[in-house]
Amino acid sequence: MKPAFAIGLDYGTNSVRAVVVDCANGRSIGTHVANYPSGDQGVLLDPKDPHLARQSPADYISGLGASVKGALVEAAREPGFDPSRVVGIGVDTTGSTPLPVDARNQPLALDPKWKGNLAAQAWLWKDHTGAADAAAITETARQRAPHYLAPIGGVYSSEWFWSKVWRCLKVAPDVFDAAASWVELADFVPALLAGVDKPSGIERSICAAGHKAMYSDVWGGLPAKEFLSCLDPKLAALRDRLFEKAHAPDRPAGRLTKAWATELGLPEGITVAMGGFDAHYGAVGAGVKTGTLVKIIGTSTCDCAIASAREPMKDVPGICGIVNGSIMPGYYGIEAGQSAVGDILHWWVDVVCLGSDVLHAQLSEEAARLRPGESGLLALDWNNGNRTILVDPRLTGLILGQTLHTTRAEIYRALVEATAFGARAIVERLQEYGVPVDRVVCCGGIAEKNDLFMQIYADVLGHPMLVAGSPQTPALGSAISAAVAAGLYPSFEEAQTKMTSLKEKRFVPDPKAKAVYDELYRMYRELHDTFGGVPGAKADLATLMKRLLAVRERHAH
Amino acid sequence: MKPAFAIGLDYGTNSVRAVVVDCANGRSIGTHVANYPSGDQGVLLDPKDPHLARQSPADYISGLGASVKGALVEAAREPGFDPSRVVGIGVDTTGSTPLPVDARNQPLALDPKWKGNLAAQAWLWKDHTGAADAAAITETARQRAPHYLAPIGGVYSSEWFWSKVWRCLKVAPDVFDAAASWVELADFVPALLAGVDKPSGIERSICAAGHKAMYSDVWGGLPAKEFLSCLDPKLAALRDRLFEKAHAPDRPAGRLTKAWATELGLPEGITVAMGGFDAHYGAVGAGVKTGTLVKIIGTSTCDCAIASAREPMKDVPGICGIVNGSIMPGYYGIEAGQSAVGDILHWWVDVVCLGSDVLHAQLSEEAARLRPGESGLLALDWNNGNRTILVDPRLTGLILGQTLHTTRAEIYRALVEATAFGARAIVERLQEYGVPVDRVVCCGGIAEKNDLFMQIYADVLGHPMLVAGSPQTPALGSAISAAVAAGLYPSFEEAQTKMTSLKEKRFVPDPKAKAVYDELYRMYRELHDTFGGVPGAKADLATLMKRLLAVRERHAH
Repeated sequence: MKPAFAIGLDYGTNSVRAVVVDCANGRSIGTHVANYPSGDQGVLLDPKDPHLARQSPADYISGLGASVKGALVEAAREPGFDPSRVVGIGVDTTGSTPLPVDARNQPLALDPKWKGNLAAQAWLWKDHTGAADAAAITETARQRAPHYLAPIGGVYSSEWFWSKVWRCLKVAPDVFDAAASWVELADFVPALLAGVDKPSGIERSICAAGHKAMYSDVWGGLPAKEFLSCLDPKLAALRDRLFEKAHAPDRPAGRLTKAWATELGLPEGITVAMGGFDAHYGAVGAGVKTGTLVKIIGTSTCDCAIASAREPMKDVPGICGIVNGSIMPGYYGIEAGQSAVGDILHWWVDVVCLGSDVLHAQLSEEAARLRPGESGLLALDWNNGNRTILVDPRLTGLILGQTLHTTRAEIYRALVEATAFGARAIVERLQEYGVPVDRVVCCGGIAEKNDLFMQIYADVLGHPMLVAGSPQTPALGSAISAAVAAGLYPSFEEAQTKMTSLKEKRFVPDPKAKAVYDELYRMYRELHDTFGGVPGAKADLATLMKRLLAVRERHAH
Repeated sequence: MKPAFAIGLDYGTNSVRAVVVDCANGRSIGTHVANYPSGDQGVLLDPKDPHLARQSPADYISGLGASVKGALVEAAREPGFDPSRVVGIGVDTTGSTPLPVDARNQPLALDPKWKGNLAAQAWLWKDHTGAADAAAITETARQRAPHYLAPIGGVYSSEWFWSKVWRCLKVAPDVFDAAASWVELADFVPALLAGVDKPSGIERSICAAGHKAMYSDVWGGLPAKEFLSCLDPKLAALRDRLFEKAHAPDRPAGRLTKAWATELGLPEGITVAMGGFDAHYGAVGAGVKTGTLVKIIGTSTCDCAIASAREPMKDVPGICGIVNGSIMPGYYGIEAGQSAVGDILHWWVDVVCLGSDVLHAQLSEEAARLRPGESGLLALDWNNGNRTILVDPRLTGLILGQTLHTTRAEIYRALVEATAFGARAIVERLQEYGVPVDRVVCCGGIAEKNDLFMQIYADVLGHPMLVAGSPQTPALGSAISAAVAAGLYPSFEEAQTKMTSLKEKRFVPDPKAKAVYDELYRMYRELHDTFGGVPGAKADLATLMKRLLAVRERHAH
């Protein structure tokens, strides 16, 4: 084929990244990151409420132009590149990150009337203000429509669409009333690029709808108005202003408008692919296939797997989402995740130890000199709640086993281990319900940079940890989606074969370390099941500290 | 009476302090601190074993001369002071801190043969290497002589005499065999000053013997040889080389030798009082009486009370010691304590946060701006085990409730609160068994300097926290003992009336804070009883994190 390029746009928590990708081999030939200028590293916070996390839609729009233009400038240095050869744009974003829009699809937050109103902004994925609302949705669904909960792990999360929208209705009814509709960021950006000028014109992705808004074709789309009325009649009324049908990424979201083409320096009318969540497109870019678990390890973690949609799929309790078509057409997309991974290390190093990247590296180096079990510490990875397998945002952190000699590096390592144990709980749950996990492919900054972290994960999970070839798998996955939508490849699978790869470096489990971690993991599960409220939890907490000391004594240098 | 002065010598964990006291009013007119030069701030450590803590006897001897001479230099500036008017010397020390001596009462450690041998040094109070030995002693006593355990809380501690001596026998049998006897530091220093040149000539204090060596007149002194034989025949043999009788401080330990008189510049032959533990003499110097709990708050805490020996005293489970005459003649001395208090704050500020005194002050100031319950944190104060009421050195620390926003100041406050909850568990246990606690008098550096700490204690305990007038109550108590032994006062009570006082500043409970802490204390007890293995512990750990969040939400600013 002739040289062809696609652009992947990846909206993260603190910045948006654009990558220009060579569709022949997936190689990135230009990339640019635009940081969101607002708030604390792009996140609007409320000092009085640690659960609140919002973003300014203006940052999304300014970041779009800045990142794409920057990436094209870099790509222009590549021999053979020409912007006229860009065939499409794909978009992935954080989610569930819904924002209220007006009748012309303009974010309410851009209207001077709502300037500074936190409820009118985008409600970032990690906003947990809707915890009580999520609990009420779960309760109502358990009583009236338990089938709504089955494919989303049995518990509705405060991170998800309806919890946030309902919370807005309660705390800022004026904002709620002013919203013509609510749009996931993943659907908003493609609609913006395609010039969709009314909410009903937006192609909504099954990825966002199915995983976060209780949408399923099985029950005719979004939850029934009767159900929503039980929450609040205004939510039932909102259903009419949302959408009837959501789609797998098997069609384009639209065509690039003249205005955006001019603004960005791209051909008018090129394909804009359907949006998706960063993790889902990240899984595509990491080469997800049956039997592969893709872990996108960042501030939080998203674990993605797929299973053929030709056979019926069992529900998996506590796994937050199983949605047909949410990752690739023709497959169930299976999504799990941990609410905080990098964020827990960030908390320890930056918030508590007042450190920086230098200290991250230093603690990682010191921690690498420790043996498994040597610190006597055991921690729970719940500083931001537990997304999978407990689906409970109102859980908090725990560190146990400290002596007067416990160091910051030992705690750093214990926190890495805690996240690895949380990851293992997810893998075991998937396997228990028939989802094979034969290989683990990691992506994200931590996978690239933190060898200690990766080795601990290999030792805790007992699988080699592979690393995706691209450092920007979500953007690559978005670009793959654009390449497929533009017709360059007949399927995602064929595009993946050409456009994805693995790094040579891999992390292989050490059997001795694995044996210690098997023991520590069982103790982790005692804490996890007890404090997490797992029915019938088995634990002997009266001896736990002593058993940890015994492990410590066996494994100290 | 004519002007008369006494010297109190206080052997602490990192230094020895000498204080010259005016016997008319208890006023300190000269003081000097000599730091121990060896090890880490005077403590010999083993990087491979965090439970090991030893001290060099050479430091004790060099510190004696330096501190007394320094104190006399300062006292010499006081009009009316004359060294010839010094009537006695009293000594208090850490304990149980036993050291092996040869047939001439010389510490083995001073013999070049044992230079650098950690087992030949003094075994500092906080050495926990004998944890397994302590457990075996407890087990053996439960089976064969449960009465030995009744007055010491039901569990023999790794911090105590026999655990350490037995440990030495196991790990360094050559040192054990070379020892003619073992002497508590509290008995060693008076014997040294009095020139006692054989172990059998040492006056042994009931304070050390009764609280730490299972000595009681009720069963004829130290544990029977039959019992010790069950542990090891060599311990039974050692019994003959220890002592038959221990005494309340109702007699002198001896008279100052000519050599020491010359060395120190004091009159030859003045009274050397019986030694005692720092906490016990500290209680005397703080004005302990029936109904008063004296808290000596330092790296660890010792809580002391007395009860008239005219009535029989019930045993109190988990209270480490009830010994007739151990604080003052005529009273049961009741000793409880927390294994780490200042040390936990030191751990957090210095070891984890790599801070210093400046950071201590800064965190205390930041923490003071938080309301009770506002952080959502709950901690256990067990980084160095639990001395009272669980008597279990193999417990470790726990911090729970962290979010991604939890600060070092919040954790600092949670650790202060944890120690306060531990203190409350002791007070409640005493009251439950009929020991009245009507007022609490605190002494030690933290009581003098850390207002936040004291206010939290007042709010958690629900009692006003009074502060002893003297900043050096152990040394003052030792001086009182010397004044009584020298015949200046007919009793400790009369000496206390003249020589002790309270500071004007006191800390009064705030009823609102008290109510929040009542609630948090119940949650603390859920963790405490569960992880501490209290039989029949009641806890609902599955909801604990959520209840803490609820408290947090009620009390946030």
